[in-house]
Amino acid sequence: MSGNAQSEQFEADFTPGSGSVGIVTPQDLLCAQPPNRLKLSCGKELGPITVRYETVGTLSPKKDNAILVIHALTGDAHVAGRHAPEDRKTGWWDIIVGPGKPLDTDRYFIICSNCLGGCMGTTGPASTNPSTGKPYALEFPVVTVEDMVAVQRMVVDHLGIDRLLAVIGGSLAGMQALAWPILYPQRVANAIVVAAAARLSPQAIAWNAIGRNAILSDPNWRNGDYYGQALPATGLAIARMIGHITYLSEVKMRQKFGRELRNGDAFKYDFISEFEVESYLDYQASRFVERFDANSYLYLTKAMDYFDLAAQYGSVRDAVARAAARFLVFSFTTDWLFPSWQSREMVNAMISTGRQVTYANLPTDHGHDAFLLDFPELHRIIRGFLSEAYRREVKA
Amino acid sequence: MSGNAQSEQFEADFTPGSGSVGIVTPQDLLCAQPPNRLKLSCGKELGPITVRYETVGTLSPKKDNAILVIHALTGDAHVAGRHAPEDRKTGWWDIIVGPGKPLDTDRYFIICSNCLGGCMGTTGPASTNPSTGKPYALEFPVVTVEDMVAVQRMVVDHLGIDRLLAVIGGSLAGMQALAWPILYPQRVANAIVVAAAARLSPQAIAWNAIGRNAILSDPNWRNGDYYGQALPATGLAIARMIGHITYLSEVKMRQKFGRELRNGDAFKYDFISEFEVESYLDYQASRFVERFDANSYLYLTKAMDYFDLAAQYGSVRDAVARAAARFLVFSFTTDWLFPSWQSREMVNAMISTGRQVTYANLPTDHGHDAFLLDFPELHRIIRGFLSEAYRREVKA
Repeated sequence: MSGNAQSEQFEADFTPGSGSVGIVTPQDLLCAQPPNRLKLSCGKELGPITVRYETVGTLSPKKDNAILVIHALTGDAHVAGRHAPEDRKTGWWDIIVGPGKPLDTDRYFIICSNCLGGCMGTTGPASTNPSTGKPYALEFPVVTVEDMVAVQRMVVDHLGIDRLLAVIGGSLAGMQALAWPILYPQRVANAIVVAAAARLSPQAIAWNAIGRNAILSDPNWRNGDYYGQALPATGLAIARMIGHITYLSEVKMRQKFGRELRNGDAFKYDFISEFEVESYLDYQASRFVERFDANSYLYLTKAMDYFDLAAQYGSVRDAVARAAARFLVFSFTTDWLFPSWQSREMVNAMISTGRQVTYANLPTDHGHDAFLLDFPELHRIIRGFLSEAYRREVKA
Repeated sequence: MSGNAQSEQFEADFTPGSGSVGIVTPQDLLCAQPPNRLKLSCGKELGPITVRYETVGTLSPKKDNAILVIHALTGDAHVAGRHAPEDRKTGWWDIIVGPGKPLDTDRYFIICSNCLGGCMGTTGPASTNPSTGKPYALEFPVVTVEDMVAVQRMVVDHLGIDRLLAVIGGSLAGMQALAWPILYPQRVANAIVVAAAARLSPQAIAWNAIGRNAILSDPNWRNGDYYGQALPATGLAIARMIGHITYLSEVKMRQKFGRELRNGDAFKYDFISEFEVESYLDYQASRFVERFDANSYLYLTKAMDYFDLAAQYGSVRDAVARAAARFLVFSFTTDWLFPSWQSREMVNAMISTGRQVTYANLPTDHGHDAFLLDFPELHRIIRGFLSEAYRREVKA
């Protein structure tokens, strides 16, 4: 994706910052405490809710330089920097968040919180149900994208921020970034929606459903009550493998794996993993089941399936008409999980209702995953969009 | 797919026959009997082998009107007609095989056999291992596309046919139809290769691998020794669901299911199947596990993964250069399991080695499954190609 003449030219204009935000300390917010529990889309109430979040950069005295970064399906609040000096890995979007980077922490105050229903510090099905003293498991209510956004708004309230300079997210987080200015038009000035959709396609619902089926049919799942026992790791592994293929493009899989065999060039005539692509899936799945809760996978994929601006507001057009934010929308040419036609659908609705919108369908071989990678064109446009927003909203 | 002016015009020229071949009786051939066991690609020998096959139409006195129809992954020898008058369903390709139909049984003698490793009458992992008196299970050797073709050749030999007028197949069967004239150049005059490839793509390998993983990790699978006990139905169901999505195009899923809910328009906020597409997958999977053996699924998908003309012969070009047959190759614009570029790869290799080849990349919304459906353009071209072959090879 990098290295062609055009991107080199842009890089000369916008030298990517190499700085790190350094050591970041996660914080927990306790909110939605009874009797002020959160009223969920399903009609139930939930609370108290703990929200794990991290911030980097400095909130301006006027509190007008805050950007909410939202993580995708299996992410967490740890968006940039390290928790400890010895950490080998940085936060999940360190490539774009830091001093001099597109989400420039010398200028912006960055907030990222783990989503409701997740398993990385925010209340979810693995959390203790205060009314039983045991993990919620399936007693946890089914939550929606709108519920996730409502909890993020509590973090923003807690930080005393009236209006976000921007929200940004890709995939499931792109749905949330899209929902934000529709739910809270006065609370966000700009929304960057990456590789997302106003509603999930039936094919994507099907992949989610098969992943859930694999978890639900794992004997260790035990109707969700597996905490403290053997985990439904095989079901979750299958779900993750399916996910990984949908995140990659067919052409990238050819480039990355081809038909290479892991051990030499002779077939083993057995059912062990032989092709490189099989080893890749095995490895990704085994890493994932160590860090992610299977029940959270059920809840978060269900929230994706349910998200549907058209069903909720009458039409995508009626939905985006509620927003006052300026939009920046990205799709990727080889993304087949959230195909470009879905971004065009929302962009056309935005245009027809007079919203301010910039749209880029970026050429890449990387498929859906492109938004997490070193992607100079993507980063350059985000940088420029935010700089203009900053000039307009903060410097003015 | 039907109903436009162009296809109506062609239908006027080539009225599809509505005739049925009537009642068909399956036959079993016992072959590869010791000491003449079949030498397999893996180096092992297998025998005796029972082959379930059916024939329709009449073999000409010169035995020059025979067409071998090959079934895809989960098919069987029952290609056309009914086994009994009360059968509700006809054979799997009845739409194209019968009196007056493109594979006109008034003219051609049609042969279809269940493939080696299958579970529909031909020897496979569920068959009794004569050396133990128990099902082979994983003692069954891993077989290849080439081994399947070798067993089909035994049927052709048994019927006294020196040279097939044509072989035809789609998907895994298209691989076999492609392998036939390369393995036995003098034994087949024409090969019709539908929605297939000279080698499976890494993405398609990955889908197969995940399906196998689901089966292998089903506790009921018991290292393959589940016969007479509870079946690994949940693993096989997951595999089948994955398969079904790959057989459909994204656009067809939109047309077919949209985001419709099964029961009314209100979300249930539960993990039951709610969307129509989920019900479809549940239904397809539950039907499939009743009729198909999970071990056969392992063996047949492995054969798909292994098929690689380039690896076996040096290049696709070197492979097809061995063939003397005329080729008819089809791909479908929305087939993402066997994308058109794979067909173009083989067609270009055929052209560059001077093979006779006709290629059609047919527009359709139906994805990979198109070859099994009512597809007038496909059927018209097959009819024309076979009529010419008949004039050239039989009438001459």
